[in-house]
Amino acid sequence: MPHAEVRLSLPHWVQSFAFAPCYPDAEAQVALAIALAERNLAEGTGGPFGAALFDGAGRLLGVGVNRVLPEHCSAAHAEMMAFMTAQQRLGGCRLNDPATGVTAPVTLATSAQPCCMCYGASFWAGLDRMLIGARAEDVMRLTEFDEGPLPADWVGELERRGIVVRRDLLRERACAVLRRYGEQGGPRY
Amino acid sequence: MPHAEVRLSLPHWVQSFAFAPCYPDAEAQVALAIALAERNLAEGTGGPFGAALFDGAGRLLGVGVNRVLPEHCSAAHAEMMAFMTAQQRLGGCRLNDPATGVTAPVTLATSAQPCCMCYGASFWAGLDRMLIGARAEDVMRLTEFDEGPLPADWVGELERRGIVVRRDLLRERACAVLRRYGEQGGPRY
Repeated sequence: MPHAEVRLSLPHWVQSFAFAPCYPDAEAQVALAIALAERNLAEGTGGPFGAALFDGAGRLLGVGVNRVLPEHCSAAHAEMMAFMTAQQRLGGCRLNDPATGVTAPVTLATSAQPCCMCYGASFWAGLDRMLIGARAEDVMRLTEFDEGPLPADWVGELERRGIVVRRDLLRERACAVLRRYGEQGGPRY
Repeated sequence: MPHAEVRLSLPHWVQSFAFAPCYPDAEAQVALAIALAERNLAEGTGGPFGAALFDGAGRLLGVGVNRVLPEHCSAAHAEMMAFMTAQQRLGGCRLNDPATGVTAPVTLATSAQPCCMCYGASFWAGLDRMLIGARAEDVMRLTEFDEGPLPADWVGELERRGIVVRRDLLRERACAVLRRYGEQGGPRY
């Protein structure tokens, strides 16, 4: 008989992380995503990636960090963990659906460009904006993680479906956590 | 404080579904994926999509059906549910990693072409083969579900990374469940 349940959790330190009541601008939102990646690396609780979701007033809707190895789950990337935890908390499968009661627009901030899976998931999660720290080429150069294939005009595909994209936010700080992981020889998967 | 846990489950009927000890060929494997989609629609436990994973001897490694609405989770597509339940059961984040002890090759059979998220997830799940029933254009024509953007040569991208793709398996039967969903006016999301 096949296994019928999935359980995924964020690390224990998330419960005591010093979250602010409000993250007022794009830089503050990406800074949180990078801080989560840094902490995940420092605690040894997963890969060097972090993500956070915000409503239109800058209030936190959810966070995620990479949990692939500890949770035995190739889908447990930072962005996916943020989407899934936030949606289950709000009781809706699209974050920007009026039924969730969330103040628009909904923003995903991620420490590094989403891989091909998280990119695809972004179309269904109910986002209005995507803020990105490091580029895919930074990820591949500094960590040797594979980002996978994307449509040629991947930014345009998001924007044509109503998701505004901003890149290279705090890119140097975002690269620093990737560089540290690469220098430590962390596993690629 | 953000929500720190995700729980996803397959419908109760999966526990009493009449699974065979072995699914010896591609048609039998896709037939199971379609049968799961049909049952999910008949039971009203999610969208009209099913997926199943097999080892090299045709033994079942895991199954999935669409659970987006009941689980409040945009990531709970059939293929993702199959990947996550099978990986957690086997205790490994790549199904075809020798450490899982699974007999190669690992096959995903899916009732319909993976959307852009499940497509991306397929690169990380540890697959060797992908068997597809209905085409993306069938899904969009018969149900109005959006499949999202893919790389222009999406089959070639899989095959260059070692995942052999076969399409149009039992396509008419796969289309029938989509058509039924469309005719019933099931929700699009």
